[in-house]
Amino acid sequence: MRASSYFIPTLKEAPAEAEVPSHIFLIRGGFIRQLAAGLYEYLPLGFRVLKKIENIVRKHMDNAGALEVLLPILTPSELWQETGRWDVYGKELFRVEDRKGRMFALGPTHEETITDLVRKNIRSYKDLPKNFYQIQTKFRDEARPRYGLIRGREFVMKDAYSFDVSEEMAVKSYNLMKETYRKIFDELGLDYLMVEADTGAIGGKFSHEFVVKVPNGEAHIVYCEKCGYAANVEAAKYEFELDKLPPEEEKPLEKVHTPGVSSVTDVAQFLGVDEKKIVKTLVYILDDGTAVAVLIRGDRELNETKLINYFNVLDAHLASSEELEKLNIVEGFVGPIGLDIPVYADISVKDLHNFVVGANEKDYHYINVNIPRDFKPVEFVDFSTAREGDPCPVCKAPLKETTGLEVGHIFLLGTKYSEAMKAYFVDRDGREKPIIMGCYGIGVSRLMAAAVEQSHDENGIIWPESIAPFKLHILALNIKDSQIKDVAEQLYQKALGMGIEVLYDDRDISPGAKFKDADLIGIPYRIVVGKKVKEGKVELQKRGAEEKEEIKINDVEGFLQKLQ
Amino acid sequence: MRASSYFIPTLKEAPAEAEVPSHIFLIRGGFIRQLAAGLYEYLPLGFRVLKKIENIVRKHMDNAGALEVLLPILTPSELWQETGRWDVYGKELFRVEDRKGRMFALGPTHEETITDLVRKNIRSYKDLPKNFYQIQTKFRDEARPRYGLIRGREFVMKDAYSFDVSEEMAVKSYNLMKETYRKIFDELGLDYLMVEADTGAIGGKFSHEFVVKVPNGEAHIVYCEKCGYAANVEAAKYEFELDKLPPEEEKPLEKVHTPGVSSVTDVAQFLGVDEKKIVKTLVYILDDGTAVAVLIRGDRELNETKLINYFNVLDAHLASSEELEKLNIVEGFVGPIGLDIPVYADISVKDLHNFVVGANEKDYHYINVNIPRDFKPVEFVDFSTAREGDPCPVCKAPLKETTGLEVGHIFLLGTKYSEAMKAYFVDRDGREKPIIMGCYGIGVSRLMAAAVEQSHDENGIIWPESIAPFKLHILALNIKDSQIKDVAEQLYQKALGMGIEVLYDDRDISPGAKFKDADLIGIPYRIVVGKKVKEGKVELQKRGAEEKEEIKINDVEGFLQKLQ
Repeated sequence: MRASSYFIPTLKEAPAEAEVPSHIFLIRGGFIRQLAAGLYEYLPLGFRVLKKIENIVRKHMDNAGALEVLLPILTPSELWQETGRWDVYGKELFRVEDRKGRMFALGPTHEETITDLVRKNIRSYKDLPKNFYQIQTKFRDEARPRYGLIRGREFVMKDAYSFDVSEEMAVKSYNLMKETYRKIFDELGLDYLMVEADTGAIGGKFSHEFVVKVPNGEAHIVYCEKCGYAANVEAAKYEFELDKLPPEEEKPLEKVHTPGVSSVTDVAQFLGVDEKKIVKTLVYILDDGTAVAVLIRGDRELNETKLINYFNVLDAHLASSEELEKLNIVEGFVGPIGLDIPVYADISVKDLHNFVVGANEKDYHYINVNIPRDFKPVEFVDFSTAREGDPCPVCKAPLKETTGLEVGHIFLLGTKYSEAMKAYFVDRDGREKPIIMGCYGIGVSRLMAAAVEQSHDENGIIWPESIAPFKLHILALNIKDSQIKDVAEQLYQKALGMGIEVLYDDRDISPGAKFKDADLIGIPYRIVVGKKVKEGKVELQKRGAEEKEEIKINDVEGFLQKLQ
Repeated sequence: MRASSYFIPTLKEAPAEAEVPSHIFLIRGGFIRQLAAGLYEYLPLGFRVLKKIENIVRKHMDNAGALEVLLPILTPSELWQETGRWDVYGKELFRVEDRKGRMFALGPTHEETITDLVRKNIRSYKDLPKNFYQIQTKFRDEARPRYGLIRGREFVMKDAYSFDVSEEMAVKSYNLMKETYRKIFDELGLDYLMVEADTGAIGGKFSHEFVVKVPNGEAHIVYCEKCGYAANVEAAKYEFELDKLPPEEEKPLEKVHTPGVSSVTDVAQFLGVDEKKIVKTLVYILDDGTAVAVLIRGDRELNETKLINYFNVLDAHLASSEELEKLNIVEGFVGPIGLDIPVYADISVKDLHNFVVGANEKDYHYINVNIPRDFKPVEFVDFSTAREGDPCPVCKAPLKETTGLEVGHIFLLGTKYSEAMKAYFVDRDGREKPIIMGCYGIGVSRLMAAAVEQSHDENGIIWPESIAPFKLHILALNIKDSQIKDVAEQLYQKALGMGIEVLYDDRDISPGAKFKDADLIGIPYRIVVGKKVKEGKVELQKRGAEEKEEIKINDVEGFLQKLQ
């Protein structure tokens, strides 16, 4: 492709709203433009990258036996009502009324539509398993669209849906997708984690997120470099045993005067004990109004998602001063002994000896508290947030923390949709049973941004080879110099003839502007044709690498062969 | 692909609303399913055909130097308001309100969006010409969606937009697209016409439609088999000279009594003259209220589209009895002589001698009327509808008539959008000028239906090879017969290994059902593996051809090589 007849409107400055590298460089590099908040135009260069990502996704989905379909973007409200999601989805669903007053949603996902197709066309166990997928434009009316392609209102997704006769087979389908996703993200050249996700709200059996590691990402992940364990902080476990304090002999319970001292740090200092021996007593109000007390060791943080999942509620909040007062609980000095509400304890409290708790009396704490001598919690539960350095729950190596960008998510849905929509099949035994489903998403357009977030420098993008818009960039530094032009043209034709995707910068602009654009656009390999042609030489560069190599023009062919 | 793990839900009966062959067979063959009125799901087989059409379109567009982009489906109302189309488009435009109350249209076409992109990113003549295209899902809220993929509410289009510095260059871009479209439709294997279209409402300079010939199509076309001339009946010309009557000497004007006789046929009979010598005088009321009289020879039909275009109005209608009365015109006996409103004449009246017209008096006609002796029309204009047998305006061979399905439409738009939206460029002479535009559409999903309309028999589809979902269909007639199964399996593996797209019917169903499905699905080549394997033979068939050929299993490889 000749740059002179192509369309790469590079910019010196990114628009003010561009905050993250992918947003900045995709706009500055002429890959995308914003049409309206959260709506982006893919220019020729951006479109090429998008298609490359699509094709990698498609190849691996096809290899896994998934069948590509294309479902309408307009999805009738009646289907959404069958599963209750017409109401649940709220403002994120774009809703459209047709000329006859019928309501439709612009599909953000297609569980309802595909389940409708399946219930109408699949009757027997002989027709199963099936996995249908599509690569399609999706819609979500985000409250705060931002970060360019990362959080848009119209975006390209790969969504897949598996249908199986049994949970065992469904797990097989799920695992096949898990492996397929690994192949996809590997080929895309991304540094990613497969993360155990919280399934709370969706109610599925398993769920994994695929998260690309990037600084300042929205997802907070705890992971183990040694064994590959990774989980959202909300769901992450850790191996507590290694963090336990050594056993001690139980000392007699004692109430001590701690005037005005109530925070963990202050109490530890005042009493001269380790924070690990201070036990916090947190009072939570569940969404049904129930109050519960949760104990956790002073050096650990309580994870509200774990708490919400444990109590199987939609919401819970820390009791306010007013709520504590109503419960006759003394703020700042709460403790489990003699408390009138159910007491649960984090596993960090199990096996703790001679610890400190509030005495439920202003300015007093108990010291030398022991379980079960002094009180007995209803249950010991994993309520605490795992953190960097905690032992991996699988291999016990120290965990790491990172932030990331979710680019894929897989769910074993079970029968949630098939039961709601009556998608049954007749099994080998002649009985009607609900089909077991899974669903599997990949953010295709978001991946374009994720790749840039992970691979850039201060001058622009450094594309992974598998999704670079072109593989080779030939720069003719001075197109008016006939010798430079002839050599560049020759090399361009040779590369084209060898089937290499090549962008040839034949524009009549300064060498500086060409280098700037080339760095911004981020094509992996570069041949610079400049003054050295007089000595029969050109320069080779790899985007992102420091070294430059001068080679004889006659030797370029060998280099090109490596790019084929 | 093994049919046993694929998804081809064939049906014995088409749904009641399916009236045309493409609708019937695409549903019965398991290519598509309807989700709601005008909304279709592409199942795996249909998706393959759609992709093949897309890829042929893409290849030729790329070869023509057009640059592929992807624009948002949601297009802001503000852009549509700039060109006035937000109001003009009416109910066909799906309109969506976002959570902040901002209005969007689901793009039925993207002139506004692409013009906005161009005005923001192209400033100089050096950046032109450009031709941007996309292959995308489009929306139109049809009042009566029907005929399956032919008239849907959500459909796949290729839309392209050219931008040039001058009309001369724009015509070059237009002609390049014209040639590109020919290549596309040729490769698709369709019998089509390139038709001169009426540009009235859009106001462009040139316009051509590409129409696939099908019975009962919506488009009415007049065309010449000899030279390729083709036009919509609304726009078609014909060579009038050959149809002229021989010259005569002028006879004296005479008023004759024709009691109760007013239709062309009756007057001709009553007076004993040829219908060609009767001239009808039609009174039209234009949309601004002006009344005009239009003369046309008795044997020809007036074409209202030509009339509307000539007078440059949006609408016109034949005067009603009341309107004639208000104008003091005698219904049934209108004539040009002494008439108080402007008189225009169709070219069929030019050079006509001694003809008959109404006398503007009840029960009277003039005979032996001659121009300019007895009256003088304002102008002679081509107002008449061309018809089968008329001489071709280009080569004079007799014209033919057909109906068809429009699958492509190209327009030279000129500056309509660039002026309305201020898409200017700075020319070589330093002056700002509006960019000259063209737009070019292809109905990608409609082409799938058009191919079926044109190529089917009573049993199902006969796909053109270039867009068939698979090239080869192997039927194992009895999968329980291990010899049949082994041979079929062997041939399947061999075809796969040779890179042939093959569907292998390995299902455990009756031979009759397999043949029925195979005919319905319409894959071009077929290998039938049946009882003859005992003699070392299989059968070859070509879909749509009568003959079957038995060949030795060992010779199948030679046949497969021809399919590669």
